[in-house]
Amino acid sequence: MPDGDTLGSSYALCSALIKMGKNARVICADKLPAQYDFFTKRVDFPEFTPETIISVDVADVKLLGGLRAEYEDKIVFAIDHHASHRDFAENLFLDGTAAAAAECVYDIIRELGVQFDEVIAAALYTGIATDTGCFKFSNTSPKTHVIAAELMVYGIEESEINRIMFDTKTKGRMAIEKAAMRSMEFCFNDRCAIMPITTKMLRDSGCTNTDLDGITAIPRSVEGVLVGVTLRQRGAKDWKVSMRSYPPVDVSAICAEMNGGGHMCAAGCEVTGTLRQAKKEILKHVKKALEEISCKD
Amino acid sequence: MPDGDTLGSSYALCSALIKMGKNARVICADKLPAQYDFFTKRVDFPEFTPETIISVDVADVKLLGGLRAEYEDKIVFAIDHHASHRDFAENLFLDGTAAAAAECVYDIIRELGVQFDEVIAAALYTGIATDTGCFKFSNTSPKTHVIAAELMVYGIEESEINRIMFDTKTKGRMAIEKAAMRSMEFCFNDRCAIMPITTKMLRDSGCTNTDLDGITAIPRSVEGVLVGVTLRQRGAKDWKVSMRSYPPVDVSAICAEMNGGGHMCAAGCEVTGTLRQAKKEILKHVKKALEEISCKD
Repeated sequence: MPDGDTLGSSYALCSALIKMGKNARVICADKLPAQYDFFTKRVDFPEFTPETIISVDVADVKLLGGLRAEYEDKIVFAIDHHASHRDFAENLFLDGTAAAAAECVYDIIRELGVQFDEVIAAALYTGIATDTGCFKFSNTSPKTHVIAAELMVYGIEESEINRIMFDTKTKGRMAIEKAAMRSMEFCFNDRCAIMPITTKMLRDSGCTNTDLDGITAIPRSVEGVLVGVTLRQRGAKDWKVSMRSYPPVDVSAICAEMNGGGHMCAAGCEVTGTLRQAKKEILKHVKKALEEISCKD
Repeated sequence: MPDGDTLGSSYALCSALIKMGKNARVICADKLPAQYDFFTKRVDFPEFTPETIISVDVADVKLLGGLRAEYEDKIVFAIDHHASHRDFAENLFLDGTAAAAAECVYDIIRELGVQFDEVIAAALYTGIATDTGCFKFSNTSPKTHVIAAELMVYGIEESEINRIMFDTKTKGRMAIEKAAMRSMEFCFNDRCAIMPITTKMLRDSGCTNTDLDGITAIPRSVEGVLVGVTLRQRGAKDWKVSMRSYPPVDVSAICAEMNGGGHMCAAGCEVTGTLRQAKKEILKHVKKALEEISCKD
């Protein structure tokens, strides 16, 4: 399931290599999402038998998916930006400070001395924009902005790219958001919002797994909410719980009490029971955490 | 009703002037929204009687609101970035290519030789981020990104600023979005989405006018929709219509047929009648426009 950075960085690198007179093409285990057609369809691959395999934005060899069996022992060069990268290639270019693999590929293309063009710039911009939530997230560095400024010089349609990436929702996404927001309840003086997503809601909305990306951000996005809880139904009495918080609430501690875990502001666990029982169980722990915070005030 | 750019650029300029040893303060006709406290509360104004009045981000003297009567003839210097600026001050610094007034103030502070600091940088970053939709809109230039990169060096918490500006919704906004999305209908093979917002929905959601900012973007944000229509009820049989489109659909032409107007992709008009009648009237015109486009295919 390649994302904007995986595709942006790989197509930019491939395009640069072709400009250098190399035979190069991009391969991916999965079908490419149509929203990236504006650059993926514009790189023409020559016919050839590959001698050198490079991986881009792949943090773990497992993520090669359907291509793993064929290629895992043959990767000569891995280009990545995940600090959690698990070494698998003969050579590694890892920049854990880069917001996107596209930042690494930008550096490499410069180093190779290849002239940037609109296709390369659009691919790299897409990688950077998608991995940073359009320069919104904390992984955005001054260098990220400087690269964006340089890429814009090549005549890319960045506001159209951003519209496709950030301002377009599928009908399925719209339907599940509507249903999820309708099911959301507020508790403890509106400091907690809890949003159940049942299998019925998923079925009725006709949404795909991709449509659910980031939906767990909704409950915490309401002003004043310190703990946002999303309950996703897995089976009749089986719920996957995602909690998001703002300091000082530590949801990893709350989830640990229910045999889960995670980070201070993003954690998860599983609970069993009817929806009513699951909510009651979760809210009991959230209540305790909020009371502890009130005491400290 | 000051926005992020008005406040960001005025507080940054004021702070820079104070650092130069000047007596300066910011005045505004309206109460400042609390979300900007992180920089507005950090500038201490000295006591003094003003001699020189500067306006910032004010495109028309009318926008001075409650301060107009007292100050409109006394403005010595206007700093603005609206190409549509209507001259009212003795001196004018107008950069119609700047994405935000904060870009103009950034240039001015550099020219004045004042050292940037975290408060000035946070104020300017907020102005730039809010006026560009976090670097998403077409007004964002390479210079916008370069300025953002420079401001980040002063230790601002830009991801926290972006969270407050872009990822937080009031309960009223959440409620009206939910109701509006529920009322939205799709027509003509899902190429048109029409979303009524009735006075009852507004009342039930408890939302303010500010909560409605940008809500007209929702219908067009659904994948495949070419014309998004928002109908906002003004009186029992009185509707304000906002249309948003993607090329080649020209909503200014559609709205002109109903005695309205605007731009190709953002236009408006008014219709009277029951909701049913209003929708019927609008959809008749939208249908015609979509049929004309299909003919050209």
